[in-house]
Amino acid sequence: MKFSKALLIGISEESLDQSSWAKIDKLITKKVFAQKDSAEFEKQLPEVDCILVGFGISITKEDLQAAKKLKYIGVQATAFGKIDTNFARKNKVVVTNLGGYSTEAVAELTIAAILERTRKLEESKLLSKNGNYTDTGIESYEIRGKNFGVLGLGKIGMRVAQLALGFNADVMYWSRTKKKNAKANNISYQNADSLIKSADFISINLAQTKETENFLNAERIKMLKSGVLIVNTAPMELIDTDALAKRLAKGDITFVLDHSDEMNKEDLKKLSKYKNCVIYPPIGLTKEAKENRKRIFLENIEGFLKGKPSNVVN
Amino acid sequence: MKFSKALLIGISEESLDQSSWAKIDKLITKKVFAQKDSAEFEKQLPEVDCILVGFGISITKEDLQAAKKLKYIGVQATAFGKIDTNFARKNKVVVTNLGGYSTEAVAELTIAAILERTRKLEESKLLSKNGNYTDTGIESYEIRGKNFGVLGLGKIGMRVAQLALGFNADVMYWSRTKKKNAKANNISYQNADSLIKSADFISINLAQTKETENFLNAERIKMLKSGVLIVNTAPMELIDTDALAKRLAKGDITFVLDHSDEMNKEDLKKLSKYKNCVIYPPIGLTKEAKENRKRIFLENIEGFLKGKPSNVVN
Repeated sequence: MKFSKALLIGISEESLDQSSWAKIDKLITKKVFAQKDSAEFEKQLPEVDCILVGFGISITKEDLQAAKKLKYIGVQATAFGKIDTNFARKNKVVVTNLGGYSTEAVAELTIAAILERTRKLEESKLLSKNGNYTDTGIESYEIRGKNFGVLGLGKIGMRVAQLALGFNADVMYWSRTKKKNAKANNISYQNADSLIKSADFISINLAQTKETENFLNAERIKMLKSGVLIVNTAPMELIDTDALAKRLAKGDITFVLDHSDEMNKEDLKKLSKYKNCVIYPPIGLTKEAKENRKRIFLENIEGFLKGKPSNVVN
Repeated sequence: MKFSKALLIGISEESLDQSSWAKIDKLITKKVFAQKDSAEFEKQLPEVDCILVGFGISITKEDLQAAKKLKYIGVQATAFGKIDTNFARKNKVVVTNLGGYSTEAVAELTIAAILERTRKLEESKLLSKNGNYTDTGIESYEIRGKNFGVLGLGKIGMRVAQLALGFNADVMYWSRTKKKNAKANNISYQNADSLIKSADFISINLAQTKETENFLNAERIKMLKSGVLIVNTAPMELIDTDALAKRLAKGDITFVLDHSDEMNKEDLKKLSKYKNCVIYPPIGLTKEAKENRKRIFLENIEGFLKGKPSNVVN
């Protein structure tokens, strides 16, 4: 079986290599690249049996109603919050995502970003570059024995929690639902406010949904323990950036983020003036994660066509 | 019981806080600070029942023969290779060290230094500081699944190995003696050359002795796998720095060190010109390790005086 026509939205030619495109051409007869909500998009929608979308693209109920022949939506990302998956299911449209393609990559980055701060690696390197090899005055501390809070215990959150356990931190989590496997792994459940008040480290691993937007609001930012180090590898929509800037100005917390590419200029300007706000470009994806992304995206399409769909999210 | 007179060599007033010195004064009637091999040292040696020494101070057979009243040597470090502990034992002199006071601190630093390189954190930060929040071109990779070699499976080496296991690396070790608890923990023994040839990461955790000096010699440096990332938190006497510089010039390995304070200027100059050689000042000790150092140093002296010596190394 083969798709007759596919719409590709928010997927660049560069996001896959030549051999992956060649494989896709064996699974799809005709590909049409289009912008969301363009005339081309509207025109093609009733014709296609497959839609492939990149990160953050919305597929609404109205889109799905117009897409009469649609059978499959392949998301080239983990997040699929902007796709009306419930309505898709009602219309017998299967939606797949990339599952845990970046779990290890993002979890390792979280620990990397934490250790970079606890050991003041940038400042230390600068000292030795300037010829100061002794009496550095660098003050550092250990992860061991500290309260380590994970907000959102999905795949990435769980992996961050496991790594933190390896460092002998006291790991706790808050998640929308309590997880059965957490307690067995010595990861204790806390309500969100208690976690925020007591954590020395916080890893934010919540999916962005209507419910989680502005999750770390002004009230919660006030609750943060003095000295806390927060790493947010999730979108910044989860954070009240005005309240964050205000707290950063006090100088008693550190905030690290890597979704700067999705932020507006004002927010970037507002946060980048604080030394205790570390802004990385989007460096979550390792070589391995990029390989996973290609492989799983293709496997999902193949699996659906063979009647064995994988990573179905609806 | 109390010591009547103690010689303190290579121990600065600043290495302990006031309350620790107050506690020491309750354990020792008279303290004499002296330089090793000074006239004062020679004069005091026959008089003292206690010697307290800092890192890297030698106490030879001749010193011990002159110290007729000596009962105890307290080392304010983990390493004690420059003290003739065998002869001390024959003379019924107890030698204690600080045991694992810095184990966690150094092991965490090793992982920090690795992740800082695998994720190119310095380069990434610089990009965003210069306003590049997208399309970074940063290439990174994961610890997971890589060959992780530990040279020297003492306390620190074992802890590094455990942390690496937490990241799901394939961990192997070489040590002078095979360790019983390694195999049970999935840490496989390799001979040194095999480990050096196959490792993607190498953590050097050997004690500096006559046998281990120049351990990573020219021949072994040639064997290193292309792309290997080496972190040496041990003294640089273990490394042939000329051969290392030659290999660094090829650009296919990365070497990270933090014992720069003990290196001579020529070696520092030789290595610091390579971008793939990351030189930190001595940042191994965390706040927690410094607390441990004070606490254990005192506990050792107290323990000996109470007839319950701890951290005896001879």
